[in-house]
Amino acid sequence: MPASVQTASGQLQITQSFSVEVSGARDVSLDEEVQRFQTQLSRQTGIPFRPKPGAAATLQIHADHGRQAVQKLGEDESYELTVTDSGAKLTAPTTLGVLRGLQTFLQLVEITPTGFAAPTVTIKDSPRFPWRGTLIDVSRHFIPIDVLKRNLDGLAAVKMNVLHWHLSDDQGFRVESKVFPKLTGAGSDGMFYTQEEIRDFITYAHDRGIRVVPEFDIPGHSRSWFLGYPELSSGSGPYTLEGGGPGYIDPIMDPTQESTYKFLEKFIAEMARLFPDAYFHIGGDEVDGKQWDANPKIQAFIHAHGMRNNQDLQAYFNQRLQKIVSKNHKIMVGWDEILHPDLPKTIIVQSWRGQKSLAEAAKQGYSGLLSNGYYLDLMWPAARHYAVDPMAMITTDAAAALTAEEKSRILGGESCQWAEWVTPENIDSHIWPRNAAIAERLWSPQNVTDVPSMYARMNAISLDLEFLGLTHRSARQHMLHRMAGTADISALRNLADVVEPVKDYERWDDAKGPIDFHAPLTRMIDAVYPESDVARHFNDLVQTFIKSGYKDQAAEAQIRMWLALWRDNDALLHPLLTQSYLLQEDVTLSQNLSAVGASGLQALDYLDKAQPAPDAWKTQQLAVLTQAKTRQADMLLMVAAPVQQLVEASAGHN
Amino acid sequence: MPASVQTASGQLQITQSFSVEVSGARDVSLDEEVQRFQTQLSRQTGIPFRPKPGAAATLQIHADHGRQAVQKLGEDESYELTVTDSGAKLTAPTTLGVLRGLQTFLQLVEITPTGFAAPTVTIKDSPRFPWRGTLIDVSRHFIPIDVLKRNLDGLAAVKMNVLHWHLSDDQGFRVESKVFPKLTGAGSDGMFYTQEEIRDFITYAHDRGIRVVPEFDIPGHSRSWFLGYPELSSGSGPYTLEGGGPGYIDPIMDPTQESTYKFLEKFIAEMARLFPDAYFHIGGDEVDGKQWDANPKIQAFIHAHGMRNNQDLQAYFNQRLQKIVSKNHKIMVGWDEILHPDLPKTIIVQSWRGQKSLAEAAKQGYSGLLSNGYYLDLMWPAARHYAVDPMAMITTDAAAALTAEEKSRILGGESCQWAEWVTPENIDSHIWPRNAAIAERLWSPQNVTDVPSMYARMNAISLDLEFLGLTHRSARQHMLHRMAGTADISALRNLADVVEPVKDYERWDDAKGPIDFHAPLTRMIDAVYPESDVARHFNDLVQTFIKSGYKDQAAEAQIRMWLALWRDNDALLHPLLTQSYLLQEDVTLSQNLSAVGASGLQALDYLDKAQPAPDAWKTQQLAVLTQAKTRQADMLLMVAAPVQQLVEASAGHN
Repeated sequence: MPASVQTASGQLQITQSFSVEVSGARDVSLDEEVQRFQTQLSRQTGIPFRPKPGAAATLQIHADHGRQAVQKLGEDESYELTVTDSGAKLTAPTTLGVLRGLQTFLQLVEITPTGFAAPTVTIKDSPRFPWRGTLIDVSRHFIPIDVLKRNLDGLAAVKMNVLHWHLSDDQGFRVESKVFPKLTGAGSDGMFYTQEEIRDFITYAHDRGIRVVPEFDIPGHSRSWFLGYPELSSGSGPYTLEGGGPGYIDPIMDPTQESTYKFLEKFIAEMARLFPDAYFHIGGDEVDGKQWDANPKIQAFIHAHGMRNNQDLQAYFNQRLQKIVSKNHKIMVGWDEILHPDLPKTIIVQSWRGQKSLAEAAKQGYSGLLSNGYYLDLMWPAARHYAVDPMAMITTDAAAALTAEEKSRILGGESCQWAEWVTPENIDSHIWPRNAAIAERLWSPQNVTDVPSMYARMNAISLDLEFLGLTHRSARQHMLHRMAGTADISALRNLADVVEPVKDYERWDDAKGPIDFHAPLTRMIDAVYPESDVARHFNDLVQTFIKSGYKDQAAEAQIRMWLALWRDNDALLHPLLTQSYLLQEDVTLSQNLSAVGASGLQALDYLDKAQPAPDAWKTQQLAVLTQAKTRQADMLLMVAAPVQQLVEASAGHN
Repeated sequence: MPASVQTASGQLQITQSFSVEVSGARDVSLDEEVQRFQTQLSRQTGIPFRPKPGAAATLQIHADHGRQAVQKLGEDESYELTVTDSGAKLTAPTTLGVLRGLQTFLQLVEITPTGFAAPTVTIKDSPRFPWRGTLIDVSRHFIPIDVLKRNLDGLAAVKMNVLHWHLSDDQGFRVESKVFPKLTGAGSDGMFYTQEEIRDFITYAHDRGIRVVPEFDIPGHSRSWFLGYPELSSGSGPYTLEGGGPGYIDPIMDPTQESTYKFLEKFIAEMARLFPDAYFHIGGDEVDGKQWDANPKIQAFIHAHGMRNNQDLQAYFNQRLQKIVSKNHKIMVGWDEILHPDLPKTIIVQSWRGQKSLAEAAKQGYSGLLSNGYYLDLMWPAARHYAVDPMAMITTDAAAALTAEEKSRILGGESCQWAEWVTPENIDSHIWPRNAAIAERLWSPQNVTDVPSMYARMNAISLDLEFLGLTHRSARQHMLHRMAGTADISALRNLADVVEPVKDYERWDDAKGPIDFHAPLTRMIDAVYPESDVARHFNDLVQTFIKSGYKDQAAEAQIRMWLALWRDNDALLHPLLTQSYLLQEDVTLSQNLSAVGASGLQALDYLDKAQPAPDAWKTQQLAVLTQAKTRQADMLLMVAAPVQQLVEASAGHN
């Protein structure tokens, strides 16, 4: 949603003669962007453009200035877009602003009774925050470069401007180092990016107005480093990428030996050359310190240097690290834990803890980014992410009130796609389309908060993203086919449509032991969307029906249609479920859905008769629904709760 | 279906430890194939393989000999594949046979209650015909190289071994010629393949065991040549790629001037170097001769040389052409019309006319290929193509009986994807999965003709093909989303599921004037599958129900479910149809479907009561169904006919 929109009646038809003309500042990346824009508009509309020679261009583009060779934080992204019945004009101070405006134009075009068209509109737009990113973890599951590239296309479509590349963690080191080849040689299972691929990837990102910020997470989350270089660690090893096992503790780098810093000096110098962005992320999160506790040499170092605890030791490490990063002309970024008064104010803190932590940092003079509330792997609905505002704590909590200058230190935020439970096959559906809601939170004015209109926009861009090459919808189709082994998956899709994965970290059941990062992720939970559109739509119908005093017949008819579909679904689906080892665990889930359908239909029958349902029936149905709401095969049936409302309503006005 | 299959109980589990070992003859293309095989097996099963070091390989591969550098017609493709509970063994005389056997292995793997597994089996297999191809026309609509590559993957999966590349026609010349750059410079709209792309493409095909046979269609179908080189034509021009217009006649090459042959000498020499295959297709079809008739100089030439007619002139042209082709060490291939006693027996005739024409050619000593009956653009169901056997005429028509030697001249066949109505977006769905049925006809023994089992295999491979990257199913989803402009397309999909495009050349309505090859192909007819699985399944249900004497309750329940879905669908769909200019033409189609649903349900009610339906009702319903069977928006509603059977049955036993 742009910062300012003025609409008028009328529309600009998109026809085969659609054409683009560029004046003002030009560069290769703008020319390529215009080409991509036309390709994407052609895909979205299905129209092969054949501009008429000599005719005035449909869309005129003008930028006053070019872009920075290396995209800067805060570089001007503003633009103005005017659409009239006869043409459109896009102007911007920089070619970077043109990139943003072209995405807006793509979003304006929709199908109408008379053809594809963009509405008549005047837009003046610029982002609320200068840092709007997505973190993608490529360590827990390696994500190939082509999959990342299509996600860059997605980020550009929603005007995000940072890919935070979480390149190393316990489970894998993913960047070729020519100085320390054993980092990937021993620590990557052969799955890593070459420096050539990385340079190409950074150019690809830059062409789309996206900065690439590398993260090498140290001193914790660094087991993969120690397979090739065990001497860096605070323990004795030997280490494996799998980890786990009895008595196993998470390895940490040893900050007490000078050789660690010599290694990091060389390593960071190499990586600082490879990654042109001004920022360099060193992680710094979740250092559990057990290896430090267990190592007498390290404890002796702590005492000898007058440190109080492991936190002080990490602060010492970070100070040393900051000097190395700074020497390489980079600004250090790290997670909450790096915050320490001894570090210079130039560093940036990324908060997984929340707005309060961010506000406190800002008060102390540190700039920060919000990620708490934007963890895509927690399987929240888009609306919940959308409600998280980087400034929210500041406006609601007087104690945290910040000055204007302090506020300006809140640079924006980043969604996070941690990769414990994703593969190249399903990562798109974990990121999209929900990431579009977070992108809007970070771009659009703070007062743009209406949830239904957010969902309307999110659904629209979700379709565009598939035309862009993302597979967030189509992958589910493939995965359901694999599970079923059959061409007809309609009954399976009916079930998949109304379930969601369990939320937060509930899938991560410690009782099952450590995660096997090499196991197939091919279960129903891996295929279904994190948020069920059907369940949300059904819930809306039920709320409409209830608010009407059970009188809205159109709503009731639709509710009945869904309930009947679900009631009858298990009979169709059950034989399929038992034939496939991947679907056997879903037998109860399918039975529950049918029970929910039957229960809801009975409740509507009672409501239609305007006679309270018998207590015994109600008790029985609530038991059915309670069972239906319990987790099955790590999934939740999202339509049980609204049906429960119907059952409760049918039993009288309590 | 392999030539010989012996099954036993038991199965080989496909687990994470799955591994492959190759012994015997090796080459780069085999190593890459083994890599691709593992990738594809991993995609189909979703299992990331992690072989245990030192363990015996699950699949052992051995080839006695390598392959020809340029794949030869009739090169040995046989293999033997044995699968036991503990492992599998694939052996072949050549590495080419290994390629075929690996595809069989992929087809054997299916999901079971205990995991993915291949059944215990012994297979001895070799193809019935040595030439099993698919023609893809890239002139009428240009098809980019990446789209063709994924179709090569598809051809390899169904063991086809020829891509017949229809590279030039009236609407576009698609190959870079360095000798005659205006062929593409003026005749391609900028859409053509560079020689470098072609060389890469041929390697890609060779790696998959596929020969690439180029076709340059002359002397007819050659308007695109004349935009750059009008002096080749028999008329005066000027020519455009669009063609058409008042008084327009199809341009033909001028075979009476020596300069034409000088041009072709140079051109064919260049193309013979570019395309390594031993065969070179010169088209030769549908020379309508109007330009020859209209050119006095050409008529004078005919008389001066004692020719009787235009056919004789074309034969003269072909003789000259054959000498040029032969001088370049290639064997000439052409369509039916090239057959003429003056041409040497080495040429190959491709028959779009039928088996009789093929048999006659064989009797005269010519080798031939069948394409009649395999035109994918005619929108036939797979079963109809499957029933077409290259030898059928020979066994049923005594007059055409051939000797064994004559029979051996029937080399095989080719499916044809002419490109008047396809784009890169929907071409996959026009080729697949129906092409798999034709591939089986050409590979498997003649007595493999059971239609239900063919469909079972076709449905299975259809899923595999999507994992391979083909978009024959997913493209429809995208196109429906585009038409609807909404995320929820379930009602639209219900309609799309039961319609098919009109058949044969019925879409090509001369009254509409010439086809606009640049128009968008984004209508419902462009999105739907050529063959409706749902309609076939529904029809099977109705036949089962009728054969049971209307007593099969399970079948009736399923029939009722479908009918109710369709009856209620228009109410959901109608609002969407009116909002989209691409869907407005489908309003009647949707209404018809609902009427068919209602009609069928009423018929079942009468049948359940075992009372004949009233005559007036029957008359009324038959009128509804007749209307429903009429073409709407160039589509046919495929479920009206079986419902008509129910209506007729309900009205008494007539």
